[in-house]
Amino acid sequence: MTKKTDTPVTVIGLGLMGRALAAAFLKAGHPTTVWNRTAAKADRLVAEGARLALTVGDALKASSLTIICVTDYQAMRELLGAPDVELDGTMLVNLTSGDSAQARAAARWAEQRGARYLDGAIMAIPPAIGTAEAVLLHSGPRPDFEAHQATLEALGTVTYLGADHGLASLYDVAGLAMMWSVLNAWLQGTALLRTAGVDAATFAPFARQIAAGVADWLPGYAEQIDNGSFPAEVSALETDVRAMAHLIEESEAVGVNAELPKLIKAMADRAIAAGHGGEQYPVLIEEFAKPR
Amino acid sequence: MTKKTDTPVTVIGLGLMGRALAAAFLKAGHPTTVWNRTAAKADRLVAEGARLALTVGDALKASSLTIICVTDYQAMRELLGAPDVELDGTMLVNLTSGDSAQARAAARWAEQRGARYLDGAIMAIPPAIGTAEAVLLHSGPRPDFEAHQATLEALGTVTYLGADHGLASLYDVAGLAMMWSVLNAWLQGTALLRTAGVDAATFAPFARQIAAGVADWLPGYAEQIDNGSFPAEVSALETDVRAMAHLIEESEAVGVNAELPKLIKAMADRAIAAGHGGEQYPVLIEEFAKPR
Repeated sequence: MTKKTDTPVTVIGLGLMGRALAAAFLKAGHPTTVWNRTAAKADRLVAEGARLALTVGDALKASSLTIICVTDYQAMRELLGAPDVELDGTMLVNLTSGDSAQARAAARWAEQRGARYLDGAIMAIPPAIGTAEAVLLHSGPRPDFEAHQATLEALGTVTYLGADHGLASLYDVAGLAMMWSVLNAWLQGTALLRTAGVDAATFAPFARQIAAGVADWLPGYAEQIDNGSFPAEVSALETDVRAMAHLIEESEAVGVNAELPKLIKAMADRAIAAGHGGEQYPVLIEEFAKPR
Repeated sequence: MTKKTDTPVTVIGLGLMGRALAAAFLKAGHPTTVWNRTAAKADRLVAEGARLALTVGDALKASSLTIICVTDYQAMRELLGAPDVELDGTMLVNLTSGDSAQARAAARWAEQRGARYLDGAIMAIPPAIGTAEAVLLHSGPRPDFEAHQATLEALGTVTYLGADHGLASLYDVAGLAMMWSVLNAWLQGTALLRTAGVDAATFAPFARQIAAGVADWLPGYAEQIDNGSFPAEVSALETDVRAMAHLIEESEAVGVNAELPKLIKAMADRAIAAGHGGEQYPVLIEEFAKPR
């Protein structure tokens, strides 16, 4: 893909992440305009070649593509809703943190004002921006993503999820839930093993292998969910809960936290109470899909 | 390694798993003696060449190596404690499910009666026994493991964990905690994405990639735990909790279960309350290591 490094880009919001985004565009050769409520945050970027706009309106006029990374969606609307801001015909890529409903509402709000709008989520820490390790998720109209993909690739590995503007937020929190769950299960196991004098470094490769191994099951298990049919090909839930009880008993016996084990068993117990004891683990989707 | 397929083996307990163990030994060519309280469970194994012992005492006399796979540790002691059972000089490998304290106590009990004793845990379902996919964890004296490793390999991939007889149980439940946590986080994400019409098969490869990616961090994070020092090289806990709040809000807003997200945040909140907000995620080991 051709990198059009001469495409001008505007970045609104120069927190830690916003500064990393602007710096990555500059490094990739894009003429970069920046704006921040506290202009001093732009000093280093200006020294590196960025142009500081005095108003949000001026910042948006400088480029046909504007990246927004501010505190929240409310702040975005206040900034872009100012009287001197012309949104008609501009392309907004909003990387502000928020939820899927906020993203969808922001898309409608921007589109009503004549802007094109992509939502996005950044699965990376600021120092990773500009490297392939930084994953950026985008959702909104595909043609808008494709028109700006080459420019956005200055920020990291960009992924298009679909037309629904809420998808970037949903995938983002779903990915974070996976991240924290792997870490928490590893901490649970590490705590258990440390009671027997096994250090974290000894247990980690075992935990890593299990996590990666189970991750490989997911596409197959997903078929059960999409088919709405959960035959106990590997193991039935009523067998699994006996081992869950062991996990709780062991955690309590050696004196480590048992909240995660208890939540695991509570979810399975509810599915069994709902009549799914003879089915396979993915049938728990019915419990995860409804509020408690 | 030389497979000594002529080594006689005894299997006590012919539930679903015990029968799979005996069948794997038979298939590997070992003269196999079996015993079960209900003798009829042995019919098919006898047809395949197993010898059915009439008493536990006879079963143990038939081989110098005996595998035990019964309901629980209490059942093991009752069977092996019968007056006609001679344990002196025999090698016991106990694959009965239980916790680490039970395994250690059973080892003392057996050793007091002159037996050599290895504990073990089976991380596999019965149909996988006899294939490399079946992972069997063993703990106890290393010379005993090494003396019988070639024979035990008829059952699957055997791993030696250390001299502490409790290790097999601890690694087993730690591995299961990892397994259920990966599955639950995937179900949480699947439930979230399904509210936007994304099917499980579309989300699964994303979840798989995150889980495997995070698993790769574990050895590095383990160093922080073993060093007892948690500098925020990647992210500080007080930054992480803001994203955890997003996960809860998003789960509640779209109407899916929020218990797992809430537990994730509750653990982090406690670590922050304990003064660790500026440190990195593995500092949570201090919360996981103590009962709530």
